[in-house]
Amino acid sequence: MREVLAEAAFQLFLERGFEQTTVDDIVARAGVGRRSFFRYFPSKEDAVFPDHERCLAEMTAFLEERAPDASLDPVDTVCDAARLVTRMYATNPEFSVQRYLLTREVPGLRTYELSVVRRYERTLAGFLRRRYVDDRGGDEPEGALRAEVIAAAVVAAHNNGLRSWLRSGGREDADASVDHALALVRTVWGRGSESTPSPATAVAATDDKDRSVDEGEVIVMVAPRGAPLWKVVQQIESALGEDA
Amino acid sequence: MREVLAEAAFQLFLERGFEQTTVDDIVARAGVGRRSFFRYFPSKEDAVFPDHERCLAEMTAFLEERAPDASLDPVDTVCDAARLVTRMYATNPEFSVQRYLLTREVPGLRTYELSVVRRYERTLAGFLRRRYVDDRGGDEPEGALRAEVIAAAVVAAHNNGLRSWLRSGGREDADASVDHALALVRTVWGRGSESTPSPATAVAATDDKDRSVDEGEVIVMVAPRGAPLWKVVQQIESALGEDA
Repeated sequence: MREVLAEAAFQLFLERGFEQTTVDDIVARAGVGRRSFFRYFPSKEDAVFPDHERCLAEMTAFLEERAPDASLDPVDTVCDAARLVTRMYATNPEFSVQRYLLTREVPGLRTYELSVVRRYERTLAGFLRRRYVDDRGGDEPEGALRAEVIAAAVVAAHNNGLRSWLRSGGREDADASVDHALALVRTVWGRGSESTPSPATAVAATDDKDRSVDEGEVIVMVAPRGAPLWKVVQQIESALGEDA
Repeated sequence: MREVLAEAAFQLFLERGFEQTTVDDIVARAGVGRRSFFRYFPSKEDAVFPDHERCLAEMTAFLEERAPDASLDPVDTVCDAARLVTRMYATNPEFSVQRYLLTREVPGLRTYELSVVRRYERTLAGFLRRRYVDDRGGDEPEGALRAEVIAAAVVAAHNNGLRSWLRSGGREDADASVDHALALVRTVWGRGSESTPSPATAVAATDDKDRSVDEGEVIVMVAPRGAPLWKVVQQIESALGEDA
């Protein structure tokens, strides 16, 4: 019933335009009563994005499950969580591309989408804040700031990759497009993945996460030819246990 | 007239609630005709945020003016542009704090605010994209990605600092609160300011922006006691001319 309604609604939006379609039109097309529509969707806008609620719930569960595992890089985890949204779009490329084009034409849908995006961002930020503040007994304002900035960066990168895919008409690989965009955030904010071939070997390794460099301490680092500097720097951070 | 209407509207929103106040109530309080209201404000929501259009225009002009100056760090420039928003809020702390509390209660105002924030973000991203892509004949998708991610980070940091100030009842220093938050973005994404006291001295300095570390090359770095590692890492990047 829910899917039938969403499909009827979307077909009508494409045929007549979003503003020109009423809930009465939708229920007539679907062959059900008016109250059925509102049982499933609070508004016309919700029928255009029928899967976001489920995806938000999935994302929350995904993060919840990984929250206790301190071995995971929180930045990697939120990037992986953002890919749940990619998967939702990629499951039905034709629908996603048509909706993308429709949303660009209808201000009300863009506003709705902004609210949804904001909810994903808050979900990711909430997970990061917990990791940066609660779990470490850390500094509340600094942890919250860092969490909000990284969540915003993840969402912006994800949406950049998703839009590239939508603009390709859904023909390219959605995951690859999003992963490429998220790599910028992982590089800048992440701990650095274990599985990445190490471009540099930092000599001064330590497990103490909160240490600073002591006076007169010298960092000696050897890097292979051609290692990009950001990888080298990331490696130094990782070896020194700098997480901030 | 515009100010009289905005003030009448806001007083009524506080007295009766946003949803319970009609445009008729507002014009009656202001002692003008209904059409006068819509001459100044497209909707009730706009009357709650009467200065954003002016501030957006100011931001656009501010960025336009600085666009040709390649000596400016684009990240610093967008952070400075974001402070125009801080200034708008700080000009009238009491109004800003009351509006913050009102907005938290009214979903329609939160949605409106999201749209406004998104317009600031796009304005900042547009400036960055031009600097990263057009001015350098650079890679379009990479420049646009970088621009969008940094603009999102700037907006998230700015709003974190602004909210801290609003939560303090407007009693703290708004600029200081926002600057503190933006410092995280400047540190991570900016070229590094000349005026920041250097926490570390990297020995291997070069002007070549695109170099990698050569095989067998050793980075020797001395840092003063207590220097936070991110500052040390930033210094290495800066001395090695790493810009990416």
